[in-house]
Amino acid sequence: MSINSVAVVADLGESYGNYTIGDDDALLGLVTASNIACGFHAGDPRVMDATVKACVERGIELGAHPGYPDLVGFGRRLIEASEEEIRTDVLYQIGALDAFARIHGGKISHVAPHGRMGSIAQTDAKHARAITDAIKAYDPSYIVICQNGLLADESRKRGLQVGYVFLADRGYGEDGMPVSRNSEGALLHDPEEIGRRVVQVVTEGTVRAVTGKVVPLGHDADVVLLHGDHPQVLQNGTALRAALDKAGIKAAGLQEVLAEKARLATV
Amino acid sequence: MSINSVAVVADLGESYGNYTIGDDDALLGLVTASNIACGFHAGDPRVMDATVKACVERGIELGAHPGYPDLVGFGRRLIEASEEEIRTDVLYQIGALDAFARIHGGKISHVAPHGRMGSIAQTDAKHARAITDAIKAYDPSYIVICQNGLLADESRKRGLQVGYVFLADRGYGEDGMPVSRNSEGALLHDPEEIGRRVVQVVTEGTVRAVTGKVVPLGHDADVVLLHGDHPQVLQNGTALRAALDKAGIKAAGLQEVLAEKARLATV
Amino acid sequence: MSINSVAVVADLGESYGNYTIGDDDALLGLVTASNIACGFHAGDPRVMDATVKACVERGIELGAHPGYPDLVGFGRRLIEASEEEIRTDVLYQIGALDAFARIHGGKISHVAPHGRMGSIAQTDAKHARAITDAIKAYDPSYIVICQNGLLADESRKRGLQVGYVFLADRGYGEDGMPVSRNSEGALLHDPEEIGRRVVQVVTEGTVRAVTGKVVPLGHDADVVLLHGDHPQVLQNGTALRAALDKAGIKAAGLQEVLAEKARLATV
Amino acid sequence: MSINSVAVVADLGESYGNYTIGDDDALLGLVTASNIACGFHAGDPRVMDATVKACVERGIELGAHPGYPDLVGFGRRLIEASEEEIRTDVLYQIGALDAFARIHGGKISHVAPHGRMGSIAQTDAKHARAITDAIKAYDPSYIVICQNGLLADESRKRGLQVGYVFLADRGYGEDGMPVSRNSEGALLHDPEEIGRRVVQVVTEGTVRAVTGKVVPLGHDADVVLLHGDHPQVLQNGTALRAALDKAGIKAAGLQEVLAEKARLATV
Repeated sequence: MSINSVAVVADLGESYGNYTIGDDDALLGLVTASNIACGFHAGDPRVMDATVKACVERGIELGAHPGYPDLVGFGRRLIEASEEEIRTDVLYQIGALDAFARIHGGKISHVAPHGRMGSIAQTDAKHARAITDAIKAYDPSYIVICQNGLLADESRKRGLQVGYVFLADRGYGEDGMPVSRNSEGALLHDPEEIGRRVVQVVTEGTVRAVTGKVVPLGHDADVVLLHGDHPQVLQNGTALRAALDKAGIKAAGLQEVLAEKARLATV
Repeated sequence: MSINSVAVVADLGESYGNYTIGDDDALLGLVTASNIACGFHAGDPRVMDATVKACVERGIELGAHPGYPDLVGFGRRLIEASEEEIRTDVLYQIGALDAFARIHGGKISHVAPHGRMGSIAQTDAKHARAITDAIKAYDPSYIVICQNGLLADESRKRGLQVGYVFLADRGYGEDGMPVSRNSEGALLHDPEEIGRRVVQVVTEGTVRAVTGKVVPLGHDADVVLLHGDHPQVLQNGTALRAALDKAGIKAAGLQEVLAEKARLATV
Repeated sequence: MSINSVAVVADLGESYGNYTIGDDDALLGLVTASNIACGFHAGDPRVMDATVKACVERGIELGAHPGYPDLVGFGRRLIEASEEEIRTDVLYQIGALDAFARIHGGKISHVAPHGRMGSIAQTDAKHARAITDAIKAYDPSYIVICQNGLLADESRKRGLQVGYVFLADRGYGEDGMPVSRNSEGALLHDPEEIGRRVVQVVTEGTVRAVTGKVVPLGHDADVVLLHGDHPQVLQNGTALRAALDKAGIKAAGLQEVLAEKARLATV
Repeated sequence: MSINSVAVVADLGESYGNYTIGDDDALLGLVTASNIACGFHAGDPRVMDATVKACVERGIELGAHPGYPDLVGFGRRLIEASEEEIRTDVLYQIGALDAFARIHGGKISHVAPHGRMGSIAQTDAKHARAITDAIKAYDPSYIVICQNGLLADESRKRGLQVGYVFLADRGYGEDGMPVSRNSEGALLHDPEEIGRRVVQVVTEGTVRAVTGKVVPLGHDADVVLLHGDHPQVLQNGTALRAALDKAGIKAAGLQEVLAEKARLATV
């Protein structure tokens, strides 16, 4: 049972009005899937339109990246929202993005909750339920991108597919989960190492922790995430794609990766 | 060629967070169609969710009511937006509303641009093109609610159906168009008169102007609008519905009204 | 040592654009001090201007009521903001309100953090420090309105005066603190009782808890708060003012109340 | 009558949350005065705090740069606001900025309305009145930075000092006013030329128009503006400062420049 493909995703479309963040043009040449901001924590209708259009033209999978309604905080601050507020905020954002998918002949394939909304959903049942209720009600074919935790549990409970994400440029602990952003070794700086790690996690399911110990990843690695705000994101992405090529691993869309995984699971 | 039906519409879902505007519960009992705020000039995801749900449950047609991104100005102030900004803002809002239509098993049937965006689109080609481009691209089956003018022209040019609206509680001039809000006689206060006028405009196509002269309406009257912020909106709506009943005119959905009109036109 | 005065305050100026909340006109006739929203959780520059003007004209003390930047949540949802974010958000709001105080010849006399920002500051040191740092830096003569807790502690630590607030229309527990909003008895409905309670808390320092037991209030009662969203706020306020009059307690500004308290303390 | 000083100003503090615009650190080394965004079209309380602090530390004059409440449009789109809306929006923003001036021991010395609000105020009386009413009411010692037009007229009518601005890096027409942004020659690219022009305009009051003809500037040149979004702003600013030095013209604060001008006028 050896998976020979992995999806490569990045957060895209996070510019806003006169403000530009990230080198989307370059990232579009490196990824197979996108997490596109939906106007609450970042992004605006022009940015969404252009980003969706570019993804559709290049065959990059469209993903919704809903966040808290907190532009000044970039969605990185917990908002003590009710389940109803989270559910309807996520629905609103998915629908808004889908308008652009529709006019450009594309289709959203996955949802990856952004920032603090995404991280809290790993441990907070209210968030996990609200997000998955929204997705299930809107389109049960959507894949939920997440790590281990309640969001993955609630997704499966509703029959939603989960795409487990590995953070390509972040240090992991011995528990097979990313270490906190402020810890020693939280950010990797060697593009070659980033490439090697991804190959290892895809082929062997293991990762060298910040302690040096090689441990099993806490979950599958269906999709690897490049952080667009990493100062060397282009070098990282280029090295990663080269390492995948060399190892004979296909950088594919997440739908294809999950389909292959499902096929292998039934063999 | 006598139309025996008319749609009755009101602006709904304009509350926001802790702020309530309008007596939506009462209006829901009077209308056959809704113009639902989409979160830019009014409305929030919870209000949109609840409003769409209520409309679907009662068989009230769903309409998107997109406006300028100007909550503090309630969409009543012109924003010198580019054609691209208007087009993408309208798309974003339609998509967001459609999310709630979709999860409640409904379907948007029309779009009525709100406030200043709607009024300027009667005379500004940029607005008229942007709005109709957005609608055409998203769903060409949507009806555009408007009065005579460039928005109607651009709609027809793109093959979009137009639902001409008569303002039930507003005074009209001898040109068959509503007089300015601040003019003498701009607001009608007698519910019985409001009912009589609507019957007359539907059956005869004429309206008594504020000058007293009876003139032809400048366009068809496919749908009559009740202003939810009129102090007597409930009395007005009740009298209007009673007058329609008495005259044998069916208060129908706008789709049905336009279908009947099309049928008669081909006879 | 018997205080013969108390301030009466209400949250004012919480309307926004086309949205109206609260009967400010009526409240202005009942209070001696105001907590005025500053545009983040509620209020806009027109509302602030009009509210400050009305207070100055009637000799009502001006208070800043800063909250989280969360209009859709009305400042009632915790935002996991940094100390720097809270401090600067509070400064921004105080300065903005002060512009209107200045042009109308008034002066802000106190600050009462709004909603969840205010309640969390009773127990969260980061919030308590951030708020009091902002006030201290801007104008150390400002009084901080709060209940017992870290906000009061940090205020005193910085040499800021504290005005302890008693919630006139809310049930209290045996600990001398208000019971949770959703508890049995959280909201009082008898205006006469509300009046009697305030007199008792001012003259004796005790309150009848929701359990029926009479207990000491957990702190002084320098100012009593009327909730503007209480359905009977006018009856409550009228009964309260009548009860104070009858008991010979002066409804005074908070500055005067604290000055009297200080004088008595040094006797 | 020869002025030997000029102020050098740039728009600063236009970053927002996670979004950065402009190289403020570099600009701070080149200017004698600042136009600081106040949170409506750009800027947030953290950015304002840091920008004011940096200016105070370096002895750079503080200027308020209020704009329309339109972050997504960066204040560059006309909003058809009422005189009351403009006046109160400007007051709110000045007060908010002043909070940071106050805590850092500085004082706002001027106001320069931003973007479209500033340009429309040259020709629209409503804007010109609203802005100058706000400034006059808040602090009549503030200087108004503008070009010729109604804003300058209304300022003088209210006894406010005017600081006439010359756009250092923009092409001028034969009427002595800047040509439209989209015209041929609208943006200058040669830092040396920019320096020479500024010296000429200060010492001789003339400018070489885009047509090649040397014409009198339409007004005084009390302050020259460097556009922070010019791709070569640092080279431009460095060349400009060097040219001033070489010509024996002091780059001074605007208050000093106007005081010198007033002194010379009375000689």
